[in-house]
Amino acid sequence: MMLINGESGRLVEAADRGFQYGDGLFETIAVKDGRPVFFFQHLTRLKIGCHKLGIPCPDLQILLSETNQLCRGLDHAVLKLIITRGVGGRGYRPPDLIQPSRVLSTHPFPNYPLEYATHGIQARFCGTRLGLNPALAGVKHLNRLEQVLARAEWDDSAIQEGIMLDVNGHVIEGTMTNLFYAKDTRLYTAKLDQSGVDGIIRQIIIMLSEKHGFPVTERMFTLDDLLNADEVFVCNSIIGIWPIRQIEAKHFFVGVMTKRIQTCLHQFQQGDG
Amino acid sequence: MMLINGESGRLVEAADRGFQYGDGLFETIAVKDGRPVFFFQHLTRLKIGCHKLGIPCPDLQILLSETNQLCRGLDHAVLKLIITRGVGGRGYRPPDLIQPSRVLSTHPFPNYPLEYATHGIQARFCGTRLGLNPALAGVKHLNRLEQVLARAEWDDSAIQEGIMLDVNGHVIEGTMTNLFYAKDTRLYTAKLDQSGVDGIIRQIIIMLSEKHGFPVTERMFTLDDLLNADEVFVCNSIIGIWPIRQIEAKHFFVGVMTKRIQTCLHQFQQGDG
Repeated sequence: MMLINGESGRLVEAADRGFQYGDGLFETIAVKDGRPVFFFQHLTRLKIGCHKLGIPCPDLQILLSETNQLCRGLDHAVLKLIITRGVGGRGYRPPDLIQPSRVLSTHPFPNYPLEYATHGIQARFCGTRLGLNPALAGVKHLNRLEQVLARAEWDDSAIQEGIMLDVNGHVIEGTMTNLFYAKDTRLYTAKLDQSGVDGIIRQIIIMLSEKHGFPVTERMFTLDDLLNADEVFVCNSIIGIWPIRQIEAKHFFVGVMTKRIQTCLHQFQQGDG
Repeated sequence: MMLINGESGRLVEAADRGFQYGDGLFETIAVKDGRPVFFFQHLTRLKIGCHKLGIPCPDLQILLSETNQLCRGLDHAVLKLIITRGVGGRGYRPPDLIQPSRVLSTHPFPNYPLEYATHGIQARFCGTRLGLNPALAGVKHLNRLEQVLARAEWDDSAIQEGIMLDVNGHVIEGTMTNLFYAKDTRLYTAKLDQSGVDGIIRQIIIMLSEKHGFPVTERMFTLDDLLNADEVFVCNSIIGIWPIRQIEAKHFFVGVMTKRIQTCLHQFQQGDG
């Protein structure tokens, strides 16, 4: 099911700057029992991203109403919300009057085995590196060729995620997830001021860890730091938290820190965290 | 006028990976007297770009035939050719069977005053920096947010181009052009192994300069190098070569090196270069 600027359909103008230049942003949101999960957080990030790109953010009431229209009756699904700078002429210069496009679509919830969350997943390192750009870092924009190339690197269904480094060799995130590690009872995740996507579950984990007295440290770290970690996990809005039990030849245990964060997130989602 | 996968139209699937992720490439080609200029060079770059992104390049005979269909009878126009990885499901992973989309469109030729080419243009430095990524450097792909943000920085019609630096402070190119400078009778342009677009006119200038015995040096250079140059010019497939007569407060002459390259390019285009 898809709504394009409020109308049911599946086509957009080829002249839309989303198609011409990847000139826009998106959100990927879990839907449970007809309701978008962490919707306020997603809309807040969308608004901040629009501001960074200079795209007027569509009226949040309209987004809310269209979201409700699409999600009604959906037990378990994925909602994708795309905002672009709208139709424009040839050339990079934004049109004088920007009329953003909005594309909302729902998709089946992926059929991930439950043991990914309980027993962990297997990951690999990607050869494709993340470029550095402070102006775009953190923003979930539509320029996603780096992730596309990284995800195209493997076809082995035993491997659930690829870990990406930036061009300076710092570990940043997974192709579709943010990454955390625990070492000596402390939690770490990558600083996202040069590259990466500032994920909603990442934001919530950082907030919850502070609230519960074991704050996450955001820092630059290397492949060696990661391989010497006690625990590693990845997260996003669809999977929640997946422990990593293996990266290339290195094995990890699903440890107490990871389980504690999973519990905190679960409780927060139930409204009693 | 627009052809989408061979059919006249103006709409594409919102599920096209061009729209979802900027997962594709484009070419912008001058059309004169019904013929696309430097078409072979554009198709060659497109083919190389497709290979780098892992997109099967559409049959060149089909592209040629659709191009002829669109350009017939056009005196002076711009042809834009977009190739994407085609329609796919949600998620970065490319579909198992890739059916690339092609969108060919023609546009009015911009109404640039003749004196831009003879007396030069005014340029500025952009605050938006180019990120570094060897895997994407040189490719004219659809992830163009950096250029969009840079071009949105100014609205003064007296300024025709913005010059972009990379995140390390090297001068790379204009928002829509490549950039050359002359110093002590030698020609220089940026090395494009970390960022930038490997423009067709840039390729031709490098080839012609070698042929005529004054080879261009590709190197990393700084803002100071540029401001201390004797001559500066920018180029692309639509404008040809424009000398720069002013960057911010600094003035330049339209010198002999620039005029010589303009003459070489003109002769090459006439088929006697």
